[in-house]
Amino acid sequence: MPLLPSCGPSLFSPNVLNKPADCIKTLGGYKVEKADYQRPSAGFSVTIEVKIQNLPGRFSEIVSYIAKQKGSLSDVTLLASDVHHTYREITINCKSQEHSEQLLSSLRQLESLSILKVRDDTFAVHQDGKLEVTSKLKVETTDQLARVYTPGVARVCMAIHKDPELSYKYTVKGNTIAVVSDGSAVLGLGDIGPLAALPVMEGKAMLFKRFAGLNAFPVCLDTTDTEELIKIIKSLSVNFGGINLEDISAPRCFEIEKRLREELDIPVFHDDQHGTAVVVLAGLINALKIVGKKLGDLKVAVSGFGAGGVACARMLLSAGVKNIVACDRAGIVYRGRKERMNEVKEELALITNPDNAKGGLKEALQGADVFIGVSEPGLVNRSMIKSMADNPIVFALANPTPEILPAEIEGIARIIATGRSDYANQVNNVLCFPGIFRGALNCRARDINDKMKIAAAYAIAQCVKDSELCEDYIIPGIFRPDVPERVALEVEKAAIATGAGSYRN
Amino acid sequence: MPLLPSCGPSLFSPNVLNKPADCIKTLGGYKVEKADYQRPSAGFSVTIEVKIQNLPGRFSEIVSYIAKQKGSLSDVTLLASDVHHTYREITINCKSQEHSEQLLSSLRQLESLSILKVRDDTFAVHQDGKLEVTSKLKVETTDQLARVYTPGVARVCMAIHKDPELSYKYTVKGNTIAVVSDGSAVLGLGDIGPLAALPVMEGKAMLFKRFAGLNAFPVCLDTTDTEELIKIIKSLSVNFGGINLEDISAPRCFEIEKRLREELDIPVFHDDQHGTAVVVLAGLINALKIVGKKLGDLKVAVSGFGAGGVACARMLLSAGVKNIVACDRAGIVYRGRKERMNEVKEELALITNPDNAKGGLKEALQGADVFIGVSEPGLVNRSMIKSMADNPIVFALANPTPEILPAEIEGIARIIATGRSDYANQVNNVLCFPGIFRGALNCRARDINDKMKIAAAYAIAQCVKDSELCEDYIIPGIFRPDVPERVALEVEKAAIATGAGSYRN
Repeated sequence: MPLLPSCGPSLFSPNVLNKPADCIKTLGGYKVEKADYQRPSAGFSVTIEVKIQNLPGRFSEIVSYIAKQKGSLSDVTLLASDVHHTYREITINCKSQEHSEQLLSSLRQLESLSILKVRDDTFAVHQDGKLEVTSKLKVETTDQLARVYTPGVARVCMAIHKDPELSYKYTVKGNTIAVVSDGSAVLGLGDIGPLAALPVMEGKAMLFKRFAGLNAFPVCLDTTDTEELIKIIKSLSVNFGGINLEDISAPRCFEIEKRLREELDIPVFHDDQHGTAVVVLAGLINALKIVGKKLGDLKVAVSGFGAGGVACARMLLSAGVKNIVACDRAGIVYRGRKERMNEVKEELALITNPDNAKGGLKEALQGADVFIGVSEPGLVNRSMIKSMADNPIVFALANPTPEILPAEIEGIARIIATGRSDYANQVNNVLCFPGIFRGALNCRARDINDKMKIAAAYAIAQCVKDSELCEDYIIPGIFRPDVPERVALEVEKAAIATGAGSYRN
Repeated sequence: MPLLPSCGPSLFSPNVLNKPADCIKTLGGYKVEKADYQRPSAGFSVTIEVKIQNLPGRFSEIVSYIAKQKGSLSDVTLLASDVHHTYREITINCKSQEHSEQLLSSLRQLESLSILKVRDDTFAVHQDGKLEVTSKLKVETTDQLARVYTPGVARVCMAIHKDPELSYKYTVKGNTIAVVSDGSAVLGLGDIGPLAALPVMEGKAMLFKRFAGLNAFPVCLDTTDTEELIKIIKSLSVNFGGINLEDISAPRCFEIEKRLREELDIPVFHDDQHGTAVVVLAGLINALKIVGKKLGDLKVAVSGFGAGGVACARMLLSAGVKNIVACDRAGIVYRGRKERMNEVKEELALITNPDNAKGGLKEALQGADVFIGVSEPGLVNRSMIKSMADNPIVFALANPTPEILPAEIEGIARIIATGRSDYANQVNNVLCFPGIFRGALNCRARDINDKMKIAAAYAIAQCVKDSELCEDYIIPGIFRPDVPERVALEVEKAAIATGAGSYRN
């Protein structure tokens, strides 16, 4: 058996952290079983401080016990030891909160250890929030104060008053994004409201900083009225260089984004739509290299008419796909359909489905080269994937449980991508949005247009080297440092080429 | 002549930086002349890199030349020297931008030096904005990402969805203030709009961080419609622990603050009103210790019906003053007056001016113990101050040029305070707003009520020790570290005592 995988990034490359967490076919090892789709995650980790009998083999027994309980051991720190006991801090990744509670209660039954402290690591990192607003300058003397505040600041204000473009130079505007949500479609949680959505928006803001050096600040709005949201976002957009819309439910999200793009002169981007679509396109570009097909020749079946599904369909059309068959709960969307239609579906009916096919997802998948699911778990079965054209490419992006589990279609689908970090080929928006905004802000683009999005997709795709490209590595790992840089560069070029941006630093 | 001033903080105390910049009577030295009211400030400083002939006395000549041109030399750094030349970086505080331009152009005439580089220090510190949004945690591994973002974050969202109070514990809300402005009354600049106001709001946010460890973020809104502003601020208040209104013009600011206080369950504070009023009350409390009078016995003349004037009048009434005579451009406000009245003035007419006096500011000042000007330069003259009761206390707060210059009434007024950092007794809101919000947030107060504001004023006043108290030191220096701490503590106590706050950390 070779020590190195036959494809994918080298385990010894600096990108080792960025390899797919479980590159099933090529890295071998742990195979996913159906019942096992909920795997331990750090998102459900607990850290316990324990006192253990200081006898040979005791700790090993405990490790083995945790494994039997399906906990996944993460960090272990030896805090102290004496002749009778050792004191350790142990972090255990669990599958769910219920799982961690069960695991803890069964650990409490063991005589060989006592649990001294328990910490839920996720809540711990959220303590007092995850962001900080800091001052770039010290204010320790009246002279410093006289520059950053009155009287000095007045001259900066007046300079901007005379030439608003100077705001990009002398304020945070040029480097700051609003992460705006009404909390109506948060992750898989639904309409939990703006306050409960805040931890997600803070997380998003962290990612903007981490991956693109951008300041981002959460703006959680207490209304779900489309016109009100548009008005409020327009009004507060003054001190932002860009607006990232987040977790706003369909179909309102389409109108809100469209109107804001028309009415504001800063870039507006609904990440749930275009972030997903850009990364799907990136993955598809690479998948096609493997199967030797072209965008213009594909038949693509799309399942789901939420933000992601609609954006994927539109993006693929923009990128050159000619035959898309899109389905919602009522089946294939076609010209003349009466049930469950709305403005967005009417529009898509006109530009997709060239044969005006009817039927359900089953019919849509027959002979399709690509399946893109942005819908619900369990909508697809093995025989539907079998009915696709040769070398089926499957993007099963429902999260956390995909439309069909990779394990079910191994050997049938040629390439499988999901939205999860614990499978190969994760479609993760973080590959897209930081670089897209970085590129747009670099040239002070007034919009993020289709050409910029397509440029982002090609940039992401190109981050996977030819030597790395394989069925289980069509999408680069999210921590690869070249991804946001390349995306920013290509997006900036596309912005300038299309006239969306013009500023040259 | 004694080496130490007879009162005010010791020059050798840790508070030396916090002494009044020019404690006229007690520290002696430079006396202010009328024509000289515009003194050099770091807000108008330029830093130049110069090449100077390396001959004995050359640099001394240049220093003397700068002084003759009324420039004030700040930092000097020797960058390099050789047998022919020395290279220095020199920072010169000027009186205005025109002054710095004149000074530079006359320096350029000198043969003994050449200017290699010029930097406007104020614009330099504003480069790319003064704030940064940073992440409190590193995101370098998928496990970290799984905690701060999906899937872990979902549990935090749902916990807050079930119990919104947990947002104070697990999000930035509990420690974050919105600094909200519509840019309609910015400093002395007037209605320059929300974008041009941004540098001020960033500066304010810096001060929240510097003096109270609070996150503050600028929210500049592109509307001046009262109802729209109320609606927008309510909607975006979700992720903030408090709202600091800033530079919103009167009388809209009164209605906006009143309604937001009623309709929101987080503290709302219009700093231009109450920040000023609290510090004025603090100064007055200490001034009365010197002149031996009591709040309840005073006659106070207030000039100006902007945010500051109205708030000062209301605050003094709350604090126990019984006789206030308030003036606007049409003179004393009295019951039954017809011209230039509005709702706020009608209300004040009912609760001030117990004798229902009529006339102008001149009449208002006759026999008054205290003058509080929050109006315009030059409204008051020597004889008006002479007509006041014994030991006149003058707060001439028009900025940058007071209602009357301290130099004009030296020997007449017993105690003089202004809004400027270059005179004794600066009424600076920064003494108030950081500690007020810190105290309010510490106990999750739902309001900042009068008792809390009065507590803040007494806390500020008490920061001036008995041994320091004198005519030129009734208000503590802004960098005294005990000020925000004491204010926060007393405000929190008052909040809990009045039921505005209840949370105990």
